[in-house]
Amino acid sequence: MKDTARQQSWKIQTELPVEYEIVESHGLFDPENPDLLSLPGGRRSTGTRLVVLDHSVEELYGAEIRGYFSKNRVMVDYLTLPGSEENKSIERVLEVVNKLNDVGTNRLSSPPIVIGGGVVADVVGLAASLYRRGIPFVRVPTTLLGQVDVSVAAKSGINYGGYRNRLGAYTPPPRTLIDRGFLATVPDRQLRNGMGEIFKMALIKDLRLFELLEEYGPELIATRFQDPDSTSTSLPGTVADEVIGRAIAGMAEELQPNLWEKDLQRSVDYGHSFSPLVEMRALPELLHGEAVAMDCVFSALIAAGRGLIGSAQLERIVAVARRMGLEPSHPLFCDVALVLDGLADTVRHRDGRQNLPMLTGIGQVCFLNDVTENEIERACAGMGRLLDANAARPEQCIGSEL
Amino acid sequence: MKDTARQQSWKIQTELPVEYEIVESHGLFDPENPDLLSLPGGRRSTGTRLVVLDHSVEELYGAEIRGYFSKNRVMVDYLTLPGSEENKSIERVLEVVNKLNDVGTNRLSSPPIVIGGGVVADVVGLAASLYRRGIPFVRVPTTLLGQVDVSVAAKSGINYGGYRNRLGAYTPPPRTLIDRGFLATVPDRQLRNGMGEIFKMALIKDLRLFELLEEYGPELIATRFQDPDSTSTSLPGTVADEVIGRAIAGMAEELQPNLWEKDLQRSVDYGHSFSPLVEMRALPELLHGEAVAMDCVFSALIAAGRGLIGSAQLERIVAVARRMGLEPSHPLFCDVALVLDGLADTVRHRDGRQNLPMLTGIGQVCFLNDVTENEIERACAGMGRLLDANAARPEQCIGSEL
Repeated sequence: MKDTARQQSWKIQTELPVEYEIVESHGLFDPENPDLLSLPGGRRSTGTRLVVLDHSVEELYGAEIRGYFSKNRVMVDYLTLPGSEENKSIERVLEVVNKLNDVGTNRLSSPPIVIGGGVVADVVGLAASLYRRGIPFVRVPTTLLGQVDVSVAAKSGINYGGYRNRLGAYTPPPRTLIDRGFLATVPDRQLRNGMGEIFKMALIKDLRLFELLEEYGPELIATRFQDPDSTSTSLPGTVADEVIGRAIAGMAEELQPNLWEKDLQRSVDYGHSFSPLVEMRALPELLHGEAVAMDCVFSALIAAGRGLIGSAQLERIVAVARRMGLEPSHPLFCDVALVLDGLADTVRHRDGRQNLPMLTGIGQVCFLNDVTENEIERACAGMGRLLDANAARPEQCIGSEL
Repeated sequence: MKDTARQQSWKIQTELPVEYEIVESHGLFDPENPDLLSLPGGRRSTGTRLVVLDHSVEELYGAEIRGYFSKNRVMVDYLTLPGSEENKSIERVLEVVNKLNDVGTNRLSSPPIVIGGGVVADVVGLAASLYRRGIPFVRVPTTLLGQVDVSVAAKSGINYGGYRNRLGAYTPPPRTLIDRGFLATVPDRQLRNGMGEIFKMALIKDLRLFELLEEYGPELIATRFQDPDSTSTSLPGTVADEVIGRAIAGMAEELQPNLWEKDLQRSVDYGHSFSPLVEMRALPELLHGEAVAMDCVFSALIAAGRGLIGSAQLERIVAVARRMGLEPSHPLFCDVALVLDGLADTVRHRDGRQNLPMLTGIGQVCFLNDVTENEIERACAGMGRLLDANAARPEQCIGSEL
């Protein structure tokens, strides 16, 4: 490894193999279901497991979860955390770390389990990533956003200094378990929130998924992605699985070749270029997926302004967002200075380049690096017209407003 | 990536390539020397660079460093931090993060530079690892410990909840620069501190290095690893380079195949099995390398107790430690309960196994998993005799005390 004589130098070259899985499992808290206990590789856990829940999960499933572990005679200690975005904080990460210290968590064989929405997944994910410089954990997302987006991600992040996900790490849990049954108890708005990310995935790479949202979006929300009662709905029984499956598979396909974001041209950043700062400024008003859906529309306005997509496609995009109860616009998206600030930070995050994913159709993207202030201003104005139309429009009519 | 029909599953498999270099560079702050400015891969930096110094570096080299950047017309902002072990804390990490926010550091092309001892290297290393989920940084270790040990490490860590390096990450800086000239201004005790880690490296894998320490250790400290004035010393001019080079190369060889410590049998953990808790309890009395040297002796006592090494080898080990001004023992190492507590946490860190590196000679190790309380007690008693001998012994006499 030594290179020269007088001024010596050494080089370290190696590769970190990374492997993790996302597994559907129905009836996760049925004491007969071993999925929550089995570790990847079939090893047995030793010592006490820390189980972190968010308040909603504690309220809805706390007794069931306690029953599951006690029937399986697994030593467990519990921590309950609030699940709102303000809690994606360093203080909460340290709270988890303190608890790991109390429990005496070891390096590999007693991975903590986090059951809840995206916020607790991020908080526990970052705590596990830092603890002893990284311990494994098991992730059980209980929201739609968690199941289709966070579930596949290698990364965790917390907000800091007014910036979204300013601190974080790329350390995926070896195993993520998906139980669609949780969605039965998720509030409507949280379902729409998850729809925001599915909407993005459809726009960047999956026309079939877009068509499924167009046709069944409202019914999927109404039936909470559960197996429909065939007498009361026309929703085919396989649609919920197909929509969730396509969203996860699309995310996995995009992430696998670029897990550490060495390539800063990422189509999954669609909907995440202008929205992060808007979302932070609007806290707690906007949920992540709501802000993402708005950014999808904002970016589509830029694409339409350049003629990359036609006005019919733009209208179709806005219409599908609305059908799923996702507002296409917000006053902060009309604030040119704020949107430009947001873009400036995104450019720093993309190391000095815009790398803006832009639709060239529904289901396909290109990348732009020359979007001008003028185009941003026009898109902001477009968001303003969508707002006015929102206030004025009769249901289902989105005619000539764009 | 989809596996089955009704219960779907997906798997992500990939590899993270990691490459970093350690480069010797003499006269780092000579405005003509480009090493501090050049980025790996030859890219140019953009934006303002954050330069973090510890108090000693600020005092000794602050003006020179400012001159270097201003003569090279590089935009720089400075942060000075205390360099003592108590400052390897989350609060200091967040202080660096705040400054990165102020400076507007971007994702790749304005890597912060840290110039100082191991503590600031760890603090800035962890901040960089977390910032935007990881930005590159440049590391300039100014102490002997930093140059021979921290310089090669991929990991950074901070103390938390009374545990050493409880939080951290494996994210090496792309480039570490070594300038032996810094050692001219390092206090004696800090040189001995670094000698502790060189001593460890010699014991586990490098008999030649051990012999160099045996022969030249005191002179290397006296001449501060600088090129000797041939009239006043018998120290050959190449010894300082050889000792530092062998220590770095040994570390690089051990780390490269196991950078993320997937294999928890690590010979470089020698000297780090019992000492971490002792070091924390003794704060601020013991420096890291001092505690490591004591642990090296403690472990050698266990090895001698089993007959893995002979008493002559044990005496030689103790003698070399003393020759370099490293105390072989400390009252806390005679405290059986504390040492057992330390071992228990180490066992958690090694996922339930002792994996204790043990000498089978000078320059070679095996691993033990069956060290008993009885053996620990006897080693503690041995440390007690070394303490007594310390108090009583006339200089250079270490005869029958063991």
